Amino acid sequence: MDETRLAALEARVAALEDQIAIARLMASYGPSVDSLSADLTAALWADDGDYDAGTWPGMAAGTTGVFHGSDALREMVSTDPHQGFVRGGCAHVVSAPRITVDGDTAVAVCYAQLLRRDEATDSYRVWRITANRWEWTRTQAGWKVANRTNRPLDGSEAARELFRDALAGPVR
Amino acid sequence: MDETRLAALEARVAALEDQIAIARLMASYGPSVDSLSADLTAALWADDGDYDAGTWPGMAAGTTGVFHGSDALREMVSTDPHQGFVRGGCAHVVSAPRITVDGDTAVAVCYAQLLRRDEATDSYRVWRITANRWEWTRTQAGWKVANRTNRPLDGSEAARELFRDALAGPVR
Amino acid sequence: MDETRLAALEARVAALEDQIAIARLMASYGPSVDSLSADLTAALWADDGDYDAGTWPGMAAGTTGVFHGSDALREMVSTDPHQGFVRGGCAHVVSAPRITVDGDTAVAVCYAQLLRRDEATDSYRVWRITANRWEWTRTQAGWKVANRTNRPLDGSEAARELFRDALAGPVR
Repeated sequence: MDETRLAALEARVAALEDQIAIARLMASYGPSVDSLSADLTAALWADDGDYDAGTWPGMAAGTTGVFHGSDALREMVSTDPHQGFVRGGCAHVVSAPRITVDGDTAVAVCYAQLLRRDEATDSYRVWRITANRWEWTRTQAGWKVANRTNRPLDGSEAARELFRDALAGPVR
Repeated sequence: MDETRLAALEARVAALEDQIAIARLMASYGPSVDSLSADLTAALWADDGDYDAGTWPGMAAGTTGVFHGSDALREMVSTDPHQGFVRGGCAHVVSAPRITVDGDTAVAVCYAQLLRRDEATDSYRVWRITANRWEWTRTQAGWKVANRTNRPLDGSEAARELFRDALAGPVR
Repeated sequence: MDETRLAALEARVAALEDQIAIARLMASYGPSVDSLSADLTAALWADDGDYDAGTWPGMAAGTTGVFHGSDALREMVSTDPHQGFVRGGCAHVVSAPRITVDGDTAVAVCYAQLLRRDEATDSYRVWRITANRWEWTRTQAGWKVANRTNRPLDGSEAARELFRDALAGPVR
């Protein structure tokens, strides 16, 4: 009987550890990009992980907002427009996530805000807010992002679809 | 002795599970309303749960911002003004909560922001921020909101009172 | 063998409890200061704890934004400029933190926002955003803040340095 109870407890503790570990990594994203820590940022993703940051009306022609793999993520942090945002004062704030773990994969739903310093008004402008879906995979080196997808909360259907899909499953 | 330790561990793990479960549900609120998922939103509440969303100077005459029960919550998501906010681009962001569990009830304190897209300035306006008290009840179907109360952080005493009461107890 | 497994579980549960306890205290900061609860605010810190809130261009001459010890923290909440912010409508929102525990000390990294009501535009202005490092110490009365340091995310190096140091260690 004790064996059964011990094994059950071990499984419950492991489930809690997964929740805390993933939440902790998600809280590392902002401080990593806002301190221009390219390696730490890339290390949040699996080696061949994807980041589809979404598109906005004002984006430079030819840019897609999609980053594939560690090198692309490192470059995202090390180049413009990101460098310009940080040099001008900005904050990438990820909201408290809703995490669902299923074995060795997990899905997290949250918001991400990009706030930028506006000297003229001595304040910050909330420049971007996106609906976020983060897909996680358990690796030898801990949980890593397999895919992160952002969709602008600008009234279009894509963000609602992302939220609905992430809330519904397949990982519940 | 092992029995005592096992039982103690089981209680501690259950307490952690309550914290994580409630935080996870609170992180589901925003994505549910912002994806116009009326059923998911209503399912966060107990069948006869209440949501007192607070009042603001600009509210339409006759409206109270109080929703009682699942049908009212579903309608809140399915009708204006909520539908208009979402179609125009918005985000309901609930901050990381302070949760206190006492047996089969719990109280959570946090902030809720409603940000709305402003095309003219290519950014978002932080339209509303409220002090929140969420009262939770443990049911057969998991934790459900018995009562959520928001009070505008507009300098008036009501928000301070809400925060002070929630920080003080009765559930600590 | 059961002894080994039990002891291992006890350590894992204690580690999770530390994470939840510190996150819960961090979520108490905003509601404490925004409800003018000077005692609750001071009680988050160790008796001789420090709060270096950072400096901003517009600060009154002679002020430093550094508070040392419980009396100074209590006074911070009970006097201007804080009282004026609260009376005019404000919110001190602390983001979901990345917490790292090492024995009886811990480091948490997060963002803090100070939003202030702007009646003219019927909305809130994000007035301040800082990079935060919270150093925690385990006491007889639970986890207490030994030192909290904020640095403005205004494009200057200090905030990036704070984030990089906190992400790197010594407590990882």
